[in-house]
Amino acid sequence: MEAITVLLSQQSKKPLYLQLYEALTKEIKEGRCPAGERMPSRRRLAEHLKISLNTVDSAYQMLAAEGYIKSVPRSGYTVCPLERLPVSRETPPPIPAAAPMPALPYDFSISTVDAGAFPFSTWARISKDVMYHQPELLAHGDRQGDSCLREALSRYLRQARGVRCAPEQIVVVSGMEYLLMILCELIGREKVFAVENPGYPRVVEALSNAGGRVRPLSMDGDGLSAVELSVAGASAAYITPSHQFPTGTVMPIGRRSELLCWAYEQPGRYIIEDDYDSEFRFSGRPIPALQGMDSKGRVVYIGTFSRSIAPSIRISYMILPPELLERYRAAFSRYSASVSRFEQHTLYRFLEGGYYERHLNRSRSRYKKRLETLVGCLRQGRLANKIQVIGAQAGLHFLLQVQNGMTERELIDKARLRGVKIAGLSSYCFPPLTPSESTLIMGYAHFTSQQIREAAALLEQVWSN
Amino acid sequence: MEAITVLLSQQSKKPLYLQLYEALTKEIKEGRCPAGERMPSRRRLAEHLKISLNTVDSAYQMLAAEGYIKSVPRSGYTVCPLERLPVSRETPPPIPAAAPMPALPYDFSISTVDAGAFPFSTWARISKDVMYHQPELLAHGDRQGDSCLREALSRYLRQARGVRCAPEQIVVVSGMEYLLMILCELIGREKVFAVENPGYPRVVEALSNAGGRVRPLSMDGDGLSAVELSVAGASAAYITPSHQFPTGTVMPIGRRSELLCWAYEQPGRYIIEDDYDSEFRFSGRPIPALQGMDSKGRVVYIGTFSRSIAPSIRISYMILPPELLERYRAAFSRYSASVSRFEQHTLYRFLEGGYYERHLNRSRSRYKKRLETLVGCLRQGRLANKIQVIGAQAGLHFLLQVQNGMTERELIDKARLRGVKIAGLSSYCFPPLTPSESTLIMGYAHFTSQQIREAAALLEQVWSN
Repeated sequence: MEAITVLLSQQSKKPLYLQLYEALTKEIKEGRCPAGERMPSRRRLAEHLKISLNTVDSAYQMLAAEGYIKSVPRSGYTVCPLERLPVSRETPPPIPAAAPMPALPYDFSISTVDAGAFPFSTWARISKDVMYHQPELLAHGDRQGDSCLREALSRYLRQARGVRCAPEQIVVVSGMEYLLMILCELIGREKVFAVENPGYPRVVEALSNAGGRVRPLSMDGDGLSAVELSVAGASAAYITPSHQFPTGTVMPIGRRSELLCWAYEQPGRYIIEDDYDSEFRFSGRPIPALQGMDSKGRVVYIGTFSRSIAPSIRISYMILPPELLERYRAAFSRYSASVSRFEQHTLYRFLEGGYYERHLNRSRSRYKKRLETLVGCLRQGRLANKIQVIGAQAGLHFLLQVQNGMTERELIDKARLRGVKIAGLSSYCFPPLTPSESTLIMGYAHFTSQQIREAAALLEQVWSN
Repeated sequence: MEAITVLLSQQSKKPLYLQLYEALTKEIKEGRCPAGERMPSRRRLAEHLKISLNTVDSAYQMLAAEGYIKSVPRSGYTVCPLERLPVSRETPPPIPAAAPMPALPYDFSISTVDAGAFPFSTWARISKDVMYHQPELLAHGDRQGDSCLREALSRYLRQARGVRCAPEQIVVVSGMEYLLMILCELIGREKVFAVENPGYPRVVEALSNAGGRVRPLSMDGDGLSAVELSVAGASAAYITPSHQFPTGTVMPIGRRSELLCWAYEQPGRYIIEDDYDSEFRFSGRPIPALQGMDSKGRVVYIGTFSRSIAPSIRISYMILPPELLERYRAAFSRYSASVSRFEQHTLYRFLEGGYYERHLNRSRSRYKKRLETLVGCLRQGRLANKIQVIGAQAGLHFLLQVQNGMTERELIDKARLRGVKIAGLSSYCFPPLTPSESTLIMGYAHFTSQQIREAAALLEQVWSN
């Protein structure tokens, strides 16, 4: 230990060395100075607490005499092992441990991606370069994110997704949850926020935590409908048109116009377009983002690099239409950017150097092959005429409907017993419901071909009986 | 350009090449393909849009014939300069530019720190090490922050600040604003949040944006009082006891106990202790954090590394008492950590290696010297008997009361004309008021001794007349 901070009072009648002695025994008894740890040097502690060396000496000698600490030649005092005393009434209640996450050999969770596919050595090299050559990035940056990154993002999104925006409209934020909390305030938490049902529980959680009035609405084959939105009295609609989570629906162009018309009907209506999984479209022509069709500034486009780069890179962004941008600038005027500038500049160079696009192209074909392998394996075996694959034109997961007489719960439990973790569609419904169809969500991105074959064989075994 | 995403319809009666031609002219006319930029290669665009090479050829030839693009030998087509057409009605309204921040040669803003004091080469070296040797950090980490960092933080805070907590109570968050938004939800935004007046506008903004009912309360010489809190019906009190912002008061131990008693009086009352500037105490014994005195779990301790390391390093943290921790785990169960794991591990090693503590010790003496130089200069000259220095025992700013007959506004304006930027105390009051005393806030951390002498001389000139 370098130092210990305890409260000593000059006014007390108790001498300082006694106060120090008592404070230190308390630290040791209550386990905050663990056995074996070295005590601060006498000189260091005296200086830290602004007391004399003699005072520390006296306290340490008492502690040593009573066996709390012992002197070790040439390294000062260390704390002695101590039978744990009964917890004093003053100690706050013990902290419950966080719920553990059980790991299974085969995990079809949708939150996993193939981090190995990412050109990490390039990222690390750029990152090192930024760190060594741009120490000026230690200072405050632009609160919406540094402009070079926003410019690169707006270029990339125009080319890849048909998004039209000025770099000034972009706000870079450390993660989707924070972003949604900000949006909730900008649009107005007293408004009704419609979300897709089934949909993304994280989004429901983040909007609710921000105080928003969240209404999950059911969808038809094309996604959320304008009629449902109007009936629900919604002012904002959170949608995932590129690859609906979790059903995999790609929203057709007709429905997109319909939703835009809904937004234009009344002032203050907004569409929050989460361009989820748009990077991974496997067949058909790319459909530009809804944002690019919006001529009246009613679409907020949001995106993240957590899935296309790596989960631990916390860079998300939103593109605010002019009205909301103005509100943001007024109400969030004192906020600082929430993403480290070193990471912002690493991403900027990664985008500008073309590395990101090459990475996506490589990943796309790699994921496509995995998807085909998995679907192929499932369709070949004894399950062949009992399954249906839904929403596999795009994205890193698809839905698997299984008609073998088992309930969704049974399918999941039987798989778990053989080491395969799968989630059911029903747990993405609000409220969670008991479904008539047994439907599973298959996230496959991080599997090797070999693992896919093994997992598919296990599923065939447990689901065929 | 690598690619352009436009919407083409197979169903339309218009042939594809014509649709593509029209979409591209629109992109060029509206300035989204700037003059001089290279068009995507024909092959690349055909592949991207999943159309034939012939379709792209036809569209490009039409564009070239009409002068939108021109063929450049061996490098394909580039966009021609184009007179800007009148803005079409479809274009969203132009984006207002963000308010510019005027820079002045001498800046006494409190948000600046001396980034040069930070051992950046050590930080960069550790950061590189983490990046090159721990690629596993690309995967999801603990949502409260990686446990090694939380353990190091709890050890550090115990030793340096007398904070007592289990690492499980710590939540690492990317910045104070996000942290306060989360806290507001945990404590309950329908509750009354008392803040110090004068105080920190960023805190008022963040709590208000989270929907909290914020009540600025006036202070006496010791800080916020329990009586004021009770009268206001507050459930939470945000305080800065180590060095009140901006008055510089260090809250005495008596007042600290008083506030704890207030919190214990009723369930659901919390103290949010922002241990602002506690790293920079220049005289007297360190006073342990209020959190360490709390035996009933009613203090939330919050801190940040933005000032002690660098503004662009976005790592803040909060220590939740058991009740709030439980609420956090239930309501924020799907949140991801908001700080990059690479940065978390860099900070972890920086703390564990003792670099942080050495850095603070060096900074403390460096800042102390600057503070003494500035106060000395001001007290020597013609202003000597017209000024009073307040709250300079700790922290990176102090208050300067000037009694020369000028109003606060006049003092600020006269300084600005000579290139010195200073803020007045009144702009940190809620609501901003016209003060009877002229009081200025002097943030001095980033000045060299030379700059201090120059700035002080300028102030002496403009304020003595």
